[in-house]
Amino acid sequence: MKLIRYGQPGQEKPGVIINDQNYDVSAFGEDYNEAFFATDGIQRLADFLQADDNGLTLIADGERLGPPVARPSKILCIGLNYADHARETGATPPPEPVLFMKSTTAYVGPFDDLVIPKNSVKTDWEVELAVVIGKKASYVEEADAHEYIAGYALHNDVSEREFQLERSGTWDKGKGCDTFAPVGPFMATPDEIGDVDNLRLWLSVNGQMMQDGTTANLIFKIPFLISYLSQFMTLLPGDIISTGTPAGVGLGMKPPVYLQPGDVVELGIDGLGTSRQTVKAYGQN
Amino acid sequence: MKLIRYGQPGQEKPGVIINDQNYDVSAFGEDYNEAFFATDGIQRLADFLQADDNGLTLIADGERLGPPVARPSKILCIGLNYADHARETGATPPPEPVLFMKSTTAYVGPFDDLVIPKNSVKTDWEVELAVVIGKKASYVEEADAHEYIAGYALHNDVSEREFQLERSGTWDKGKGCDTFAPVGPFMATPDEIGDVDNLRLWLSVNGQMMQDGTTANLIFKIPFLISYLSQFMTLLPGDIISTGTPAGVGLGMKPPVYLQPGDVVELGIDGLGTSRQTVKAYGQN
Repeated sequence: MKLIRYGQPGQEKPGVIINDQNYDVSAFGEDYNEAFFATDGIQRLADFLQADDNGLTLIADGERLGPPVARPSKILCIGLNYADHARETGATPPPEPVLFMKSTTAYVGPFDDLVIPKNSVKTDWEVELAVVIGKKASYVEEADAHEYIAGYALHNDVSEREFQLERSGTWDKGKGCDTFAPVGPFMATPDEIGDVDNLRLWLSVNGQMMQDGTTANLIFKIPFLISYLSQFMTLLPGDIISTGTPAGVGLGMKPPVYLQPGDVVELGIDGLGTSRQTVKAYGQN
Repeated sequence: MKLIRYGQPGQEKPGVIINDQNYDVSAFGEDYNEAFFATDGIQRLADFLQADDNGLTLIADGERLGPPVARPSKILCIGLNYADHARETGATPPPEPVLFMKSTTAYVGPFDDLVIPKNSVKTDWEVELAVVIGKKASYVEEADAHEYIAGYALHNDVSEREFQLERSGTWDKGKGCDTFAPVGPFMATPDEIGDVDNLRLWLSVNGQMMQDGTTANLIFKIPFLISYLSQFMTLLPGDIISTGTPAGVGLGMKPPVYLQPGDVVELGIDGLGTSRQTVKAYGQN
């Protein structure tokens, strides 16, 4: 199943993609939020669709897509999880996963504008595979981790490098600016994705390919990450784990290259669609 | 006004403290959450109380208190914001505020058990003054910051020092374990608190005073913090900012001292009441 949400920010309605068509499922009566995932919502939605599949209406072309699941309780991100990216930033691949958190106010739709914060000169891109948690996870064994996955989505882990690295303290300051977490276009359940450890992921800026990697190169794989993170905090249904980015970010260029107003960022992952963000200055329409 | 929430975890009902008595205000019909604060809830609640103050029922003694506001979208914490605490941890006071984030799954009531995570040997305490945000804040001027404050509360920023400092990456790993954010007993609106920059805050373990400081020693004051953080991310109504801890944490002892099952932690801030957590091992009843 492929879940989407559409409509104006904060007022998104649920939908599904069937045979490449976007259908409204408002009649199902639930948002794709913590309560939905906690109560076996995906199975209930599948049952609803089976009972009702002739009654679905197409979503009009041009409707805005929101992020495919409702605002999560948290967005956990893994840093330096591809060896080539660790190298380009001058870091050593860490002995265990690096965790940082992204403010959920950064969370936006896949085609929303990417707004450069005020006083930013180092806004950068990071294509990432995001995992959506399907049920409450605490001290999960790696062998059981797959049971806790609701699905996968495409994520641009937008990052302000000066805020992240040069402004005292942890990385969180440069990761959670508004619009810094475009997710989607859809969340795919695991059955929709072949081998999640062998997906191409790429990102271009103004048509020039900047990142072109594969999840085969993830240092810490998804089941390990879920198990690992669940040792430190409880993961809730609908929470998002973003698994890290391959080489090719602006920070890694010589000299570094950062986003400018008017730039167009496009990204994609095999089986998870593509997204596109137009870069705007703060306050620019 | 002093807001409380009472009842079982996840099912708390709203209440208020009037003349040191706890009253139920379920009839008001709202939880103290993002929507409540965003829609001038404190004024509406005051109006409700004025219209209805003879109809309030006392909350029975022995009812569990939850945290005084609903689970926020985020808990932002400031590190090393008292010079004496920075010194005891061997850190230099930072040139600008250090930000880290606490998973909201850590958020519990003021008298709930404090659970030492599995495999933890360095669980530590930190008494802190927490600020509750009253309205959406983005690029706020320091001079206007007071308009964005809904109130204040007592917070124990419980911290696992090995997870925080020795396990790769940012501090977030050691700050968001379950039960690591006891908040309350109540949220006080600013008019209830005299000079917020001159409050004693203290914490004892098994009756022995460990921290005894004053908010007069905050390096970065609250209006500055609100303005500063709002440059990096939007603060939402109900969000919590915890402002840092004074000297006297376990990490700062020579040799360091950490919490053990059976320990009792008590803490307080002038005008914001006291809380008490009994330390348990994971899985202990």
